[in-house]
Amino acid sequence: MKNMEQLFPGVARLAFGTPESDTPSKQVYVRAPRGEALAALPAAAAPFDAGQIRFSVSTRGCRLELPLSPGEDIYGFGLNLKRLRHTGRKRTLRVNSDPAVDTGDSHAPCPLYFSTAGYGVLVDTARYATFYCGGNELLNARKQTDEAGGIRLTEAELYAGKEGVSAPMVVDIPAAQGVEIYLFSGPALLDAVRRYVLFCGGGAFPPEWGLGCQYRACGAFEAGEALSLAAELREKHIPCDVFGLEPGWQSHAYSCTFSWSPERFPEPEALVNRLREQHFRINLWEHAFTHPDAPFYEELRPYSGDFKVWNGLVPDFTLAPARETFRRHHAERLTRRGIDAFKLDECDNSDFISSPWSFPECSRFPSGHDGETMHSMFGTHYMNVVDGACRDAGVRTYGLVRNAHAFAPPQPFVLYSDLYDHAEFIRGVTTSGFSGLLWTPEFRHAASPEDYIRRLQTMVLSPLMLLNIWMMPNPPWRQLVRERNVRNEFYPPEEQAHLEVLTRETLQLRMRFLPYLYAAFAAYRFEGTPPFRALAMDYPEDERLRDVDFAWLAGERLLVAPFRAGMTELVLPLPPGVWRDFHTGERHEAEVRLAPAIGELPILVKENSVIPLADPVEYIEDGMQHRLTLRVYGSAPEPARLFADDGFSFGYENEAPAWGEVRADGSMSESAKRRYAVKAVERF
Amino acid sequence: MKNMEQLFPGVARLAFGTPESDTPSKQVYVRAPRGEALAALPAAAAPFDAGQIRFSVSTRGCRLELPLSPGEDIYGFGLNLKRLRHTGRKRTLRVNSDPAVDTGDSHAPCPLYFSTAGYGVLVDTARYATFYCGGNELLNARKQTDEAGGIRLTEAELYAGKEGVSAPMVVDIPAAQGVEIYLFSGPALLDAVRRYVLFCGGGAFPPEWGLGCQYRACGAFEAGEALSLAAELREKHIPCDVFGLEPGWQSHAYSCTFSWSPERFPEPEALVNRLREQHFRINLWEHAFTHPDAPFYEELRPYSGDFKVWNGLVPDFTLAPARETFRRHHAERLTRRGIDAFKLDECDNSDFISSPWSFPECSRFPSGHDGETMHSMFGTHYMNVVDGACRDAGVRTYGLVRNAHAFAPPQPFVLYSDLYDHAEFIRGVTTSGFSGLLWTPEFRHAASPEDYIRRLQTMVLSPLMLLNIWMMPNPPWRQLVRERNVRNEFYPPEEQAHLEVLTRETLQLRMRFLPYLYAAFAAYRFEGTPPFRALAMDYPEDERLRDVDFAWLAGERLLVAPFRAGMTELVLPLPPGVWRDFHTGERHEAEVRLAPAIGELPILVKENSVIPLADPVEYIEDGMQHRLTLRVYGSAPEPARLFADDGFSFGYENEAPAWGEVRADGSMSESAKRRYAVKAVERF
Repeated sequence: MKNMEQLFPGVARLAFGTPESDTPSKQVYVRAPRGEALAALPAAAAPFDAGQIRFSVSTRGCRLELPLSPGEDIYGFGLNLKRLRHTGRKRTLRVNSDPAVDTGDSHAPCPLYFSTAGYGVLVDTARYATFYCGGNELLNARKQTDEAGGIRLTEAELYAGKEGVSAPMVVDIPAAQGVEIYLFSGPALLDAVRRYVLFCGGGAFPPEWGLGCQYRACGAFEAGEALSLAAELREKHIPCDVFGLEPGWQSHAYSCTFSWSPERFPEPEALVNRLREQHFRINLWEHAFTHPDAPFYEELRPYSGDFKVWNGLVPDFTLAPARETFRRHHAERLTRRGIDAFKLDECDNSDFISSPWSFPECSRFPSGHDGETMHSMFGTHYMNVVDGACRDAGVRTYGLVRNAHAFAPPQPFVLYSDLYDHAEFIRGVTTSGFSGLLWTPEFRHAASPEDYIRRLQTMVLSPLMLLNIWMMPNPPWRQLVRERNVRNEFYPPEEQAHLEVLTRETLQLRMRFLPYLYAAFAAYRFEGTPPFRALAMDYPEDERLRDVDFAWLAGERLLVAPFRAGMTELVLPLPPGVWRDFHTGERHEAEVRLAPAIGELPILVKENSVIPLADPVEYIEDGMQHRLTLRVYGSAPEPARLFADDGFSFGYENEAPAWGEVRADGSMSESAKRRYAVKAVERF
Repeated sequence: MKNMEQLFPGVARLAFGTPESDTPSKQVYVRAPRGEALAALPAAAAPFDAGQIRFSVSTRGCRLELPLSPGEDIYGFGLNLKRLRHTGRKRTLRVNSDPAVDTGDSHAPCPLYFSTAGYGVLVDTARYATFYCGGNELLNARKQTDEAGGIRLTEAELYAGKEGVSAPMVVDIPAAQGVEIYLFSGPALLDAVRRYVLFCGGGAFPPEWGLGCQYRACGAFEAGEALSLAAELREKHIPCDVFGLEPGWQSHAYSCTFSWSPERFPEPEALVNRLREQHFRINLWEHAFTHPDAPFYEELRPYSGDFKVWNGLVPDFTLAPARETFRRHHAERLTRRGIDAFKLDECDNSDFISSPWSFPECSRFPSGHDGETMHSMFGTHYMNVVDGACRDAGVRTYGLVRNAHAFAPPQPFVLYSDLYDHAEFIRGVTTSGFSGLLWTPEFRHAASPEDYIRRLQTMVLSPLMLLNIWMMPNPPWRQLVRERNVRNEFYPPEEQAHLEVLTRETLQLRMRFLPYLYAAFAAYRFEGTPPFRALAMDYPEDERLRDVDFAWLAGERLLVAPFRAGMTELVLPLPPGVWRDFHTGERHEAEVRLAPAIGELPILVKENSVIPLADPVEYIEDGMQHRLTLRVYGSAPEPARLFADDGFSFGYENEAPAWGEVRADGSMSESAKRRYAVKAVERF
């Protein structure tokens, strides 16, 4: 074992054995750490000494044992739809598009955990590592426990996990004969998370329009149908910044040609111009599997894996020629011709249940990577390449992706899923933040109007407001049932109108929070604070909050608890201090009993906050000025932070952070005035 | 790659790279192949040449590509509760006590598959290998398919597996730098399965009493309660050969002391004698995890893995001292003192969902084995050790076990599970036969009287008739609802009596089939024919039967299609030829519409069969004579085979097989008369 290498304040690296060459830290997508911001965090000692970590190798891989103490709780491991708190569990980090059971399988697993004791550990491996989070005792451990006691008469009794930690964190890394780990100190849990994000280069910083609303149109549309729907959105004043086209825009999919369909989209330039004139940004669906008809197929073929996926090539993005081929095509044909974003589908892996559509873990790539490490890193490589094509065209993008891993925080993409359980979608927001990942609890279809509205509300204070209507030709407010929507069988006019109003109002609420959210993302970028966080991340000492996977903190001052269809009431434990009802100003401490009307999203505000709300616009215009109404809660309100770059360019990467603030009296820092004006102040 | 090594007629071995040392074929539990029986099978060429197999290694393990042709269907991979036919799927063979999804996870996975083209392949590895069964095309494959076609508007359309094979069988073996495989020729699929079983040493051959009924009593019982229940079984004339005691017999469990509880069972000798006087065999529950209070704890400790399970040692059964310690204790304290069988629990692995109670895959054992290979082989090692302790006492045993793997067919143990879906329990019978494994669709609890009776019926023509009532103090016919049963709240007397009658009749039906089943097991032992087989195993050319996972062939002449609660009718496709209703003699061809009464198990008989039915006894006496009623179906009936060893000793291992036959006219071969007499002939 080597000594601990201090990389930055509170960030240390340790090497064990002979690490592999194809690990996340060694990929081209890794960004420079934000050293200054790391140095600005409060000082903290390393969580443990190198001597407290045991390491060993065998023919099947290597093993780490890291200290855990009673009372510690463990979070992280990437996006997790099944569980927030992992203490005592076994997590195997397989990339899987359909994680049906609570085992660690995920679209976006990440070999990274954080402890309520205030530190984090990144294991730098792209292997499907297994983490035993304190549930398995070593034979030679000092402590002897014996909890056998009475005879048990149900399986639940027999196999009950022990609460809490009684053993070390054991990490089982296949294949590798060594590994490097990174330790992130606190002192607080949130500081440790910040250090990870900053070490990765800071969080993603979307353009303002990216935080607006996105509508993805039916996959079977032709150009005329797409334009007609876009016109309807504008006509009905449904807020929409991004218009998404699904596979049908391509001449062939699955797999992809990355080329417009001459049948369905014969005049792409005209289509793009028409949409842009109406202030839509365009997001195009694709996956990386490259069809023989793609113009760069032959060029890419030597830099592809040895298995086909849907008869397409699997690009080896670890090789410069594959990246360059992809980037050039996207830049020349798409981003320089008016396309601003992409939805990167199926870059995760086949679930292990239905057909094995993706490439096997035992695939070989010309770079020497295998399918297992490639699956872990495929999404992040893919984001990096597509982001490069956007940058080529000067486009600050904000796209969609179905896989991510370590070092992904700076990538401007939001995870999504084909899974669709509402409680899991909510949980995903609370879990992904621990790994610096963004997740959208998108809307796709609903079992009822109530389900529809509740799912829309869930997105208001989330990374992305996404109406993903790829399965239906007509807007959901006209008919939620797909089979009827496809046949143009609509609700009665008054019901359509009612749902349309609820839709517009919910999307407008999103648009009102846009300045607040934009500042939260700036804090993500410059300070490492995830914009959406489990309550346990900010308040790890409060044991009542450690399993709260149905509410989250949004930005600095808000707490949101989305309701699901069928819920009538929720008793939510509150973090310390006074919290105010966003809508009524009512004061709550310790807990709050929520019973919102169907059209209402429960939001709580930290006492003494100024919450800036914008006049809701239908779309963002570059550099536009936002007219703010301030909501002031409490008698000693702290100013609200605002971020006032131009909102769309890469200027923020080189300039000093354009922080500003607005105060409860409506006054504003000079810097903020560039983009914001106060219209009214409302006191609660 | 080396040349093919012909081991026996139709059994060949090929080596690739540098195989591991800790593979199934190298374990002490491997028995001598039955060379003569192998030679008696019809000649068949190898399914493919060594040159058709591609092999490669990487740091993460090795990979095989084996030929598959369009039209081939793939079966096997051990016990599978989720799926019978694996064509086009990805199977990862993890040992898992709770296989919640259809991925290959199993109590008893086996790296062994069979093709409808009439061959089998055993991959000699204890790694959690992954098999891609023809669903993933190589880039350099000759054939180009392109099925993209129209735009798809549901996930089901997007990710639909292709029907049939379009690619090779790809085997991904972690860690290993080489592997040996065994090829089993046909010509027919059933011949290939037979070759595998015979190569393993032939199938398990239980004593006659093992095929009788087993009742496992409440885990909380004291000796007096156990005796009282046993007396009730005899008093009510409920057939029962084996009386099972659950964890409470031990002084400590979980983990185990393997020693009688001085509180609950202060006079074990008296208890054993009393039960044996009443003609009960005794089966004791245990698992291998050894508690500090076990008398051999200190002796075993140096030969144990480096993780504890429930605070107990994990014995390294690959080492002689661990085996010998275990065997000696079991022989001296248990099998030589009247215990005839064991239930070997939890020798599989923690599911990957709830608590990780078992030892990690990265465990280390003093032999050099790791937790992964140990998990694969733990059950088979454990069976072998406990069978040894039984043999020590001259006991031909038939026990229960929760894990098995390759080379397990000769072990006299039946797999069971804590899972409990009735359709899956039925499927398990159809899948396990392909790997020479036995599985009991045991009864444990029921949602309704109908569910109870249907579950009992399912076991009549299965490896084991097991009423596993460990969760309730009173017999299920008095009260099925556990909470009430525990409180001695019983059904009204007439309902109890009704359920008791149905129970007795169903168990008696099992006892009537005992000579028929015993002959089927003799065929398993001497000829390799699994006693319970999917229809596809005997009739692979019939595509209508390839997915029939709800009915099976039992022995040579019977086909059984158990009903589940709520089913009213089933249209069952029939194998070629005429089939007769067992109960009525009605003729059916091609298919049969089944609509059995609640008390009736649908059974079909191959035309021209003699089915010997015994007078149902409550228990088997050593060497007893069975009085047979022959059921004769058809005008040209073939004689029925009978097996006439003593039924309880190991004599059959050294003597010529004691085959006999009984003919439709009631006449019998001399050899059969030792154990059977014909009482009546009934013609249908």
